[in-house]
Amino acid sequence: MIRGNILNVFTGEVYPAEITIKSGIITCVKKIEGDFDGIIIPGLIDAHIHIESSMLTPSFFAKAVVPHGTTAVVTDPHEIANVWGLDGINFMLNDAEKVPLRLSFTAPSCVPATEFETSGADIGPDEIDILLEKEEIVALGEMMNFPGVINGDPQVMAKIASAKRHRKPVDGHAPLLSDGELCSYVSAGISTDHECSSLEEALEKRELGMKIMVREGSSAKNLEDLISAGGDFLVSDDKHPQDLLEGHLDYIVKKAIKLGMDPVEAIKMVTINPAEHYSLNMGAISLGRVADFILIDNLTSFNVKKVFIGGELVAENKSALFDASHQDQSNSIALEKLEPSDFRIQASGNEAIVRVINVSDGQIITSESEARIQIINQDLVPDTSLDVLKISVIERHGKSIAFKNKEGSADRESLNNNNNNNNNRLENLSNLCTAFVKGFDIKEGAFASSVAHDSHNVIVIGTDNQYMSQAVNTLIENKGGLVAISKNGKKSLKLPIAGLMVDDDVEIVSSKLQELHNMALEMGCSLESPFMTMSFLALLVIPQLKISDKGLFDVSKFEFVDVIKKIIN
Amino acid sequence: MIRGNILNVFTGEVYPAEITIKSGIITCVKKIEGDFDGIIIPGLIDAHIHIESSMLTPSFFAKAVVPHGTTAVVTDPHEIANVWGLDGINFMLNDAEKVPLRLSFTAPSCVPATEFETSGADIGPDEIDILLEKEEIVALGEMMNFPGVINGDPQVMAKIASAKRHRKPVDGHAPLLSDGELCSYVSAGISTDHECSSLEEALEKRELGMKIMVREGSSAKNLEDLISAGGDFLVSDDKHPQDLLEGHLDYIVKKAIKLGMDPVEAIKMVTINPAEHYSLNMGAISLGRVADFILIDNLTSFNVKKVFIGGELVAENKSALFDASHQDQSNSIALEKLEPSDFRIQASGNEAIVRVINVSDGQIITSESEARIQIINQDLVPDTSLDVLKISVIERHGKSIAFKNKEGSADRESLNNNNNNNNNRLENLSNLCTAFVKGFDIKEGAFASSVAHDSHNVIVIGTDNQYMSQAVNTLIENKGGLVAISKNGKKSLKLPIAGLMVDDDVEIVSSKLQELHNMALEMGCSLESPFMTMSFLALLVIPQLKISDKGLFDVSKFEFVDVIKKIIN
Repeated sequence: MIRGNILNVFTGEVYPAEITIKSGIITCVKKIEGDFDGIIIPGLIDAHIHIESSMLTPSFFAKAVVPHGTTAVVTDPHEIANVWGLDGINFMLNDAEKVPLRLSFTAPSCVPATEFETSGADIGPDEIDILLEKEEIVALGEMMNFPGVINGDPQVMAKIASAKRHRKPVDGHAPLLSDGELCSYVSAGISTDHECSSLEEALEKRELGMKIMVREGSSAKNLEDLISAGGDFLVSDDKHPQDLLEGHLDYIVKKAIKLGMDPVEAIKMVTINPAEHYSLNMGAISLGRVADFILIDNLTSFNVKKVFIGGELVAENKSALFDASHQDQSNSIALEKLEPSDFRIQASGNEAIVRVINVSDGQIITSESEARIQIINQDLVPDTSLDVLKISVIERHGKSIAFKNKEGSADRESLNNNNNNNNNRLENLSNLCTAFVKGFDIKEGAFASSVAHDSHNVIVIGTDNQYMSQAVNTLIENKGGLVAISKNGKKSLKLPIAGLMVDDDVEIVSSKLQELHNMALEMGCSLESPFMTMSFLALLVIPQLKISDKGLFDVSKFEFVDVIKKIIN
Repeated sequence: MIRGNILNVFTGEVYPAEITIKSGIITCVKKIEGDFDGIIIPGLIDAHIHIESSMLTPSFFAKAVVPHGTTAVVTDPHEIANVWGLDGINFMLNDAEKVPLRLSFTAPSCVPATEFETSGADIGPDEIDILLEKEEIVALGEMMNFPGVINGDPQVMAKIASAKRHRKPVDGHAPLLSDGELCSYVSAGISTDHECSSLEEALEKRELGMKIMVREGSSAKNLEDLISAGGDFLVSDDKHPQDLLEGHLDYIVKKAIKLGMDPVEAIKMVTINPAEHYSLNMGAISLGRVADFILIDNLTSFNVKKVFIGGELVAENKSALFDASHQDQSNSIALEKLEPSDFRIQASGNEAIVRVINVSDGQIITSESEARIQIINQDLVPDTSLDVLKISVIERHGKSIAFKNKEGSADRESLNNNNNNNNNRLENLSNLCTAFVKGFDIKEGAFASSVAHDSHNVIVIGTDNQYMSQAVNTLIENKGGLVAISKNGKKSLKLPIAGLMVDDDVEIVSSKLQELHNMALEMGCSLESPFMTMSFLALLVIPQLKISDKGLFDVSKFEFVDVIKKIIN
């Protein structure tokens, strides 16, 4: 039995009440007389987040966010599904079972993201159907393949049809889509969007009946622009470890209130609205719903004092009252140690004109430039004076080896032809592509990471083949994660779980990440988040020039292009 | 392509637009410039109606309501299911298929209503599960058995669990339920209520998270009392043929606007709100939804000018542009002709003190009184001077005969004992119970009807056995319906389809009903709707004294009671 001032999200009223709970379910809410401190509101629900963005396993993520009032998340396990497929989703479920945070999932709709890369799994319409049958899968996840929707791609349409058959909603992802194309997209039955970046965009989508997820995460921050859009949800989409230290949904609601949003409206966007949309038995202090609620100081400063899940006090004064659990997981980096020579870009001649991927700080869009590069010992070499570094993506799911078994005697040459590019390959037939990148400005050393959207192959940027192989080999030893290496030594953030996450406290992960950022700065790189910027260079659906394990990729042409434009003798 | 001012229910705005339609679906809505008359709003949806209350088959019901702007109904086929079970629901579906009105169904949750009567079918948890699997069944129908919910009756809970499994909502029916009992009812997962009769009741239910269906039908009119409750839907529940002449949802919306409701709010309650709640792809002039919309003159007078369903003009100037269809249906009145002696209440002695069912005009609640009655030729006879008439309910589903086959040699006496009452029985073993009723004030003659909630057995009220048998025999000849008989002749409204409906135009049915009402008045009966009042006398779940084919029933005791309290010699 709990007593206090409660917020009724159905009526918007606040009144003193007594909440009776049985087996974690609210069985009675009775108005009483009394003078209480603070207000009890329903537990906060993030309607759209990729937990993997926190680099924490679900249970350590829970330990980080529950003290901030988050009692449930609808998470799209898109990242881990690209590595481990359905097993990855089961891992997330099992890991979260030991902590009170409630996890619901969307079935990741776009795995792999494209056919131009090697992912760890392929989730087709049949797998989607299996997933949507499960109670914990509450929707079809964000449909990023909007060209597929617009053109009526049979695989895409089969996935959407499966969701309709299961009476589950389809989440959207349609940045800047508008007019006729947006019409086709919405017509297919996609009901939410979290990619609006301007008020105009949000209003157009809302007018068409889409529910608007106003996003305020670590990468994209749209709240200020969309505050007057009349959105339906407040979501984070992604949340990096450092940002989790200052809060999660409580941070967003606080900001919304400061920006002038009615507090009750803001609270509804993270309680009853997501609960209703995804048919979750929560989101209100009301009968028959789970007893998930939080005590805040008041509706203006919105400080979370206590958190209850299933009627149990699970966090108080910003500390979790439960432990996260550790998990043994198989190594997901299916790679043998590499040699410096593996990073050679083989060519005869003196110099070459090459394509270069140009990055800008804080942007996931790249541009293409060209550079004149020396050929030494039949290898194209980076030019740090021009900030033209080498970048490689190396298949790490063990799929290329499977390819060898299947084909019998595929050799390096046939693979090269097959992949429509002229880059070098590992002898063990893991796919590896090397090209050039500009914007990182490392003077001597390399960065490597096993977080590289969306297939999460190993990505490495370096000033020479030696540093690149050292960085990747350290990553392999670490079973995944982030590595920075220079003449002064090396720093790592180990992410041994699927190469994406670690079972450790957010404070520790944040501080290691900070050390990596500091080291990057010492190495000459002044990007705000060099590893995050690097992680998007393999994302083939965002323009302009990108790289996968299979080749250098021109997003506009939607085809592979050669690294070398011209050889100069 | 249709152009005009459209109402966007997502934003509440009205603007000129061009609607593009392909295969009945809206594929584009484009803002344009232009000066147009009237406003196009989404087609109206009744979230809760029993079509059978109109006495019209679905297709003739469609012909009556579509010109008033109704393009879809969520109908609870509770009445026909009590007669024909699942076949009845299929009949409704098939009959409606030939007309443009869209029918969705709820699975009737309480068939039969009690175990103290003989219905034509029994819909248990297994049948509910089969029904809920179907796409056209969008919810579990109104859960009238609230004691069953509160006490956790396993059959009731199994039906609710089936709805949850199918991710379909459960409709409520909880008149005057409050406090702890209401808590239990809502806790079970029941999400709507259409039985609120006071603002206080509606606010209590809303506070608990129930969606409020504000009802304004032919029997119950709650709009005026609930106008400020912040309800979610406007519904009719039932609509008698005469009332359909003046409108359906258009009538309710018009009244709501007159009472001060914001027109856009009122429109949402009969468009997007029911569409969202029951996951119907309609309710907005928006992409991917069916092209069901209506042209009204303006948001104040709310006169429906044109009606489009699936992009086709289906009604104009209050006339349907389609034909309703006729259906051959088997006779649902499984009865042989009766003799006057079948209505005898056998007793020795000179007089008897008997229980009398007292009716009040416009009420479905009865009270119990007693009367001193003469015994002539060992038969208790009515006393018109006291307005104490005979009333009988006769099983008409052929189930009692099945009972004979099963039991072999069940005779009248054993049946009487079995049923805990001392009334007479038909030799052919159809159940028949005769008792006394006060309030109809017929001076000479009888009324008979095959509409008698909820089992819809034949009910008859008369001044002597002769008239009663004549009325019932006419009803049998007519294959069901309403009959009035007096010394001046007889009038009928034939309802040959399940004894509940007729495939005829609303104008004709209304005029026949009016003739019956006129004749009733001539016979001395001044009740406003004598046949409706009679139809509720077999409804065993509404207090106080009621009658079924199995006996006279005390609703408070929830058991059968004797007709004769005392014999006077």
